[in-house]
Amino acid sequence: MGSLTSDQLDGNSGLVINPLDPEEFRRQAHMVIDFIADYYKNVDKYPVRSQVEPGYLRKRLPECAPYNPESMETILQDVQEHIVPGVTHWQSPNYFAYFPSSGSIAGFLGEMLSSGFNVVGFNWISSPAATELENIVMDWLGQMLKLPKSFLFSGNGGGVIQGTTCEAILCTLTAARDRVLNKIGRENISKLVVYGSDQTHCALQKAAQIVGIDLKNFRAIKTTKSSSYGLSPDSLLTQINLDVEAGLVPLFLCATIGTTAITAVDPLKPLCDVAKQFGIWVHVDAAYAGSACICPEFQHFIDGVEGADSFSLNAHKWFFTTLDCCCLWVKDPSALVSSLSTNPEYLKNKATESKQVVDYKDWQITLSRRFRSLKLWLVIRNYGVANLRHFLRSHVNMAKLFERLVASDKRVSPSAVMDKLKPKYENCHSQQLVTEEEAINEFNRELLESINASGKAYMTHAVCGGIYAMRFAVGATLTEERHVMVAWTMVQEQLEAFLTTNTPFN
Amino acid sequence: MGSLTSDQLDGNSGLVINPLDPEEFRRQAHMVIDFIADYYKNVDKYPVRSQVEPGYLRKRLPECAPYNPESMETILQDVQEHIVPGVTHWQSPNYFAYFPSSGSIAGFLGEMLSSGFNVVGFNWISSPAATELENIVMDWLGQMLKLPKSFLFSGNGGGVIQGTTCEAILCTLTAARDRVLNKIGRENISKLVVYGSDQTHCALQKAAQIVGIDLKNFRAIKTTKSSSYGLSPDSLLTQINLDVEAGLVPLFLCATIGTTAITAVDPLKPLCDVAKQFGIWVHVDAAYAGSACICPEFQHFIDGVEGADSFSLNAHKWFFTTLDCCCLWVKDPSALVSSLSTNPEYLKNKATESKQVVDYKDWQITLSRRFRSLKLWLVIRNYGVANLRHFLRSHVNMAKLFERLVASDKRVSPSAVMDKLKPKYENCHSQQLVTEEEAINEFNRELLESINASGKAYMTHAVCGGIYAMRFAVGATLTEERHVMVAWTMVQEQLEAFLTTNTPFN
Repeated sequence: MGSLTSDQLDGNSGLVINPLDPEEFRRQAHMVIDFIADYYKNVDKYPVRSQVEPGYLRKRLPECAPYNPESMETILQDVQEHIVPGVTHWQSPNYFAYFPSSGSIAGFLGEMLSSGFNVVGFNWISSPAATELENIVMDWLGQMLKLPKSFLFSGNGGGVIQGTTCEAILCTLTAARDRVLNKIGRENISKLVVYGSDQTHCALQKAAQIVGIDLKNFRAIKTTKSSSYGLSPDSLLTQINLDVEAGLVPLFLCATIGTTAITAVDPLKPLCDVAKQFGIWVHVDAAYAGSACICPEFQHFIDGVEGADSFSLNAHKWFFTTLDCCCLWVKDPSALVSSLSTNPEYLKNKATESKQVVDYKDWQITLSRRFRSLKLWLVIRNYGVANLRHFLRSHVNMAKLFERLVASDKRVSPSAVMDKLKPKYENCHSQQLVTEEEAINEFNRELLESINASGKAYMTHAVCGGIYAMRFAVGATLTEERHVMVAWTMVQEQLEAFLTTNTPFN
Repeated sequence: MGSLTSDQLDGNSGLVINPLDPEEFRRQAHMVIDFIADYYKNVDKYPVRSQVEPGYLRKRLPECAPYNPESMETILQDVQEHIVPGVTHWQSPNYFAYFPSSGSIAGFLGEMLSSGFNVVGFNWISSPAATELENIVMDWLGQMLKLPKSFLFSGNGGGVIQGTTCEAILCTLTAARDRVLNKIGRENISKLVVYGSDQTHCALQKAAQIVGIDLKNFRAIKTTKSSSYGLSPDSLLTQINLDVEAGLVPLFLCATIGTTAITAVDPLKPLCDVAKQFGIWVHVDAAYAGSACICPEFQHFIDGVEGADSFSLNAHKWFFTTLDCCCLWVKDPSALVSSLSTNPEYLKNKATESKQVVDYKDWQITLSRRFRSLKLWLVIRNYGVANLRHFLRSHVNMAKLFERLVASDKRVSPSAVMDKLKPKYENCHSQQLVTEEEAINEFNRELLESINASGKAYMTHAVCGGIYAMRFAVGATLTEERHVMVAWTMVQEQLEAFLTTNTPFN
């Protein structure tokens, strides 16, 4: 094994087609495109949430890698037979869980072009187009959102495409931390305090853990029904004052536009006003709902963003761009660069030395980076602002349709709680069925499980103010009104069947 | 704008094809496949390193996003006309710079399937196949590398696919940090010391910065010619003893198999022996050269890995898997989980509660994650262990060919320095041309620039022991012997032309 002799025994010497042979690429890739097109054609027929049991795949696949090659035809058969049953179909029109992962043809094609070029765009010289297209497209999208010019390259800020919001928060938090520690001394790291609400995404806590914030200085400020679960500026101020009195140093606030559980909206302007008094870095996490702000009628949700230091949204959630594509804008790129840059000899080059270029490696966690801007560029150009707005509005309208359907059923009509939980941004619904008691929570938990076990639709849950709520998030690209109506009928049927055996509220 | 009226003015109401329509997908995707196949057919004709000037693209693209949709045909024309000139062609057979980004048909098709399903596999339930295939494939690849069973799921360790080595190091360093701080108290973070060599990749320093290691406690231990620029265990021990005497706490060592500048190899076994005495977490960064260790004749480069805590390689570098795909194995997954887990209500589910499943969100920085294992699975199956070894060996043989060509030219024959710089792992050459003086360094710098400016090949440089060296890294998938020979002839011609106007060594 391993000698030239064994190599010959492999039977491969000189006979192997180059693994990037253009004509073989063409043949096989056309085959896979047809496979995926057929998948989309049939995706509504699969159980939305995978119905497999833990460990299903190990029983079906060999324990070791194959020594000899297997044909792409064989592999595709295995994908169909063994992988597809274990896929939870985020692209199904009957997918209403978590948040959408809204794929599109343009997004897919952009990803293909990116994989085709397969460049490693860590700095400008490694592939100038990768950096420059990202500069341009991030300015385009920033303009579409009407972000203040200070967030754009044209205004001395700038945008960068990260993988996910977790990375965006981690980068900005690191920059904020170092900005403060450079003033007060690194030995004071244990005095730094990070603020969010009890509705803030777990990405904030994780980032705080990673950058070394003492978790006893992590503030998940309680929200209430009275503020529709948005973070109250008064609560923030009270907490900050307590911290300052205790000798701690307020560092970072993550405000959210469209929280994960119930799409609550934190009031940016007054929060930024509070933060400004204490020199706190404000990051705005608009991972999900941010996309909608390209529609003039929803733009007001980010009113006050001019007071923030950074803003991010996930184009891979609800902007028709395949995973991953988190768009982050910052007012002061030098803060990122100062914390995240390294300058090894092997990456030195004249373009960098000229200071006329952006080297995105210094704006993010990783060195290597994909040519992600291609997919965002294709999505924006191929649909245009007009269609993108149209798609987003159609989802909002479908969510409103679902809301009307729920309201029309007396057994489950939106309760007082529902009205409070009603999201500011109406695409994601948190429907609390029946009444408030814990027995009812359990009833709803089991009802949701029975809906998901049917495979006909997939919804997830939230708990807010002690209430277990079923969430219905419209945003899968293939979803049409008829899917929403069928889903509602199915919920009613499951409820009906369930009521014959479970009657907790009589 | 934004009212229903303006929506109708957009002319889109009800007339728009769904952005994931299967037949439109099929039509457009076939078109893009042909575009990419043609790109591969012609890639050897483009200047390898892009020849554009900073700012070239902003002059060519509109300042704002288009309001109305544009056809994919128009966009592809623009890709050809405006993007391709700004691409540095990592897939060109004449690409010998940095490290390879070795694409393949199977890797590309795996990425396509992953983009097609477009699942967000943060935990098991979100797409069981994404998690389980990753478990299986990481065990497969671990076996191919003959990693000790303690790194495999079958031995209570386990593997995870991260984006890049930067993330792999950041995750393991965070886990190591918390394991120690939980014992000695978080207030002692400023006492922690991180070790590497002056050849270690900048990812280590960046990760140290992010997790809050005081940079005065970051040790880039000097390497020398006498150890072929590998990290000396004696030097490590001496430094650790100094640190311990100073009241500091040794935390983490990153050892490298195939350093970035000159593919030096750190001696794992004795380094791990030293580290063990002090309870230091050892991470092995085999980002580039690790792939070759699936060939029995190269496997010895990771001898001693059984003493390490974690090991990573980038399948997107030299394992025919498109960017990004960093394979990380750890002996103690619970250390990662303990540092990186969060448990928000909206992600709670029965499978997680059963503790029968892996939730990869707790093994990495980000929550959202792509179905990356598909591409690794397709690469391993479609080529088989046999062909993968064959491909890797053919690259090594081409590098040896280049070495012989260099040796045959008296003007540039490998000097004594070259012999010292000669990498342990021979695929990446660092060729030092002519003599050692600074004037010669400058001569070589300019010679390299003239080679790269020709567009006929792309090579990069390293500086090691004060010597400026031109690197010639063979690994692009399309590279054949004839490309290596042409590149060498071109280097000779450039040198000849250069010598007529520049004669620093007479």
